[in-house]
Amino acid sequence: MVRRNEIRAGEVAVDPPAATDAGLVFIGRIYTPWTDRRVCPRQGRADGPTCRIEVFPPWIAALDSIDHYERIEVLYWMHLSRRDLVRQSPANDGTARGTFSLRSPVRPNPIGSSIASLVKVEADGLLVRGLDCLDGTPLIDLKPDRTLFTPIAPRQPGDDQVGDG
Amino acid sequence: MVRRNEIRAGEVAVDPPAATDAGLVFIGRIYTPWTDRRVCPRQGRADGPTCRIEVFPPWIAALDSIDHYERIEVLYWMHLSRRDLVRQSPANDGTARGTFSLRSPVRPNPIGSSIASLVKVEADGLLVRGLDCLDGTPLIDLKPDRTLFTPIAPRQPGDDQVGDG
Repeated sequence: MVRRNEIRAGEVAVDPPAATDAGLVFIGRIYTPWTDRRVCPRQGRADGPTCRIEVFPPWIAALDSIDHYERIEVLYWMHLSRRDLVRQSPANDGTARGTFSLRSPVRPNPIGSSIASLVKVEADGLLVRGLDCLDGTPLIDLKPDRTLFTPIAPRQPGDDQVGDG
Repeated sequence: MVRRNEIRAGEVAVDPPAATDAGLVFIGRIYTPWTDRRVCPRQGRADGPTCRIEVFPPWIAALDSIDHYERIEVLYWMHLSRRDLVRQSPANDGTARGTFSLRSPVRPNPIGSSIASLVKVEADGLLVRGLDCLDGTPLIDLKPDRTLFTPIAPRQPGDDQVGDG
C-alpha cells in the first residue's frame, strides 16, 4: 500500500498483536502543504517548503534552547497508515520486500522520523524545512540532530567501551 | 534526572495528559552489555560492542532485504524513563534547558533513535554496533538509514516541490 490502504500483489499482511504495550501522547501537530498521500514527497528535502510544527501545552517550555541546533530530528505518528504488512511492494510491480528494509509509512508502529532544517522558533512551535508528512500529522518528539549534539551529562563507563573484548 | 528518577535543581516537571493518543506494540527486544543507567553510553559509537536485536513473531518476515543496508535506524522504547520533565539539567549544576534541545531519555514519549552498523542478519534478528540503550529495551521499529535509502515508490508531485513559491 502507501497511496491507499489496498494490499498489492506480493504483499503480506499478518494478524498483529494488540498495540497496548505502551501509550503515546500527541505533543503537537504538523502543518504541511500536502493533504493527500498521493502528492506527499516520498522523502523530505532540505530545500522543500516551510512547514509549521505546533507544540501543545504543557510541552512548550521544552522548546527552550532548541535554537542552538540547525537541524532537528522530528518524530511523528503516521496516523493513516495500516500496521499489518510485513512485505510490501512500493513499485506495485509484483516484487516485494520486508517492511524493515523500507522507509514506507506502513509499519507495525507507524512512527516517521525526519531531519528538518530549523527556520524559526515561534512562541508555540517551529518553522522548518525538510518534512514529508501529511498536513495534520500528530507530533510525538523533537530532538537535536544526533550529529550536532554533544552530550552534556558527565561521562559514563559505556562512553569509552569499544569492541567485544 | 537520567541516572535515577530524581528531579534536580532547575528541572521542571509538568502534569502530563494521559498517554492514550496511540498505542505501541513491542516488536522485539534489544540485548546490550549495559544493565544500569549509570554505565550506559550517553551516545552510541560505531566501534562500540556488538548488541543483539531480537525480532518477535509475526514481524520476522519484515527483515527480508535489510541486509542491503550497512546502517539501520533503530527506534526503541526507553521503558525506565520518566516522561514529565520539560526542563532538564544533564550536568546537575543548577542550569537547565528544554527537553527538546536534549537527547536525554526523559521525554514526553521516551522513544530513542540510533543509527546502528549492521554486523549480521540472523534468523530472528540482527547483530549491530552503535547502540546506547539498556539491556532488555523494547524494540519499536527498524528502518534503513535515511542517507542510504532511495525510495522505490513512483515519483509523486511533492518530491519536486521546493521553496514557498
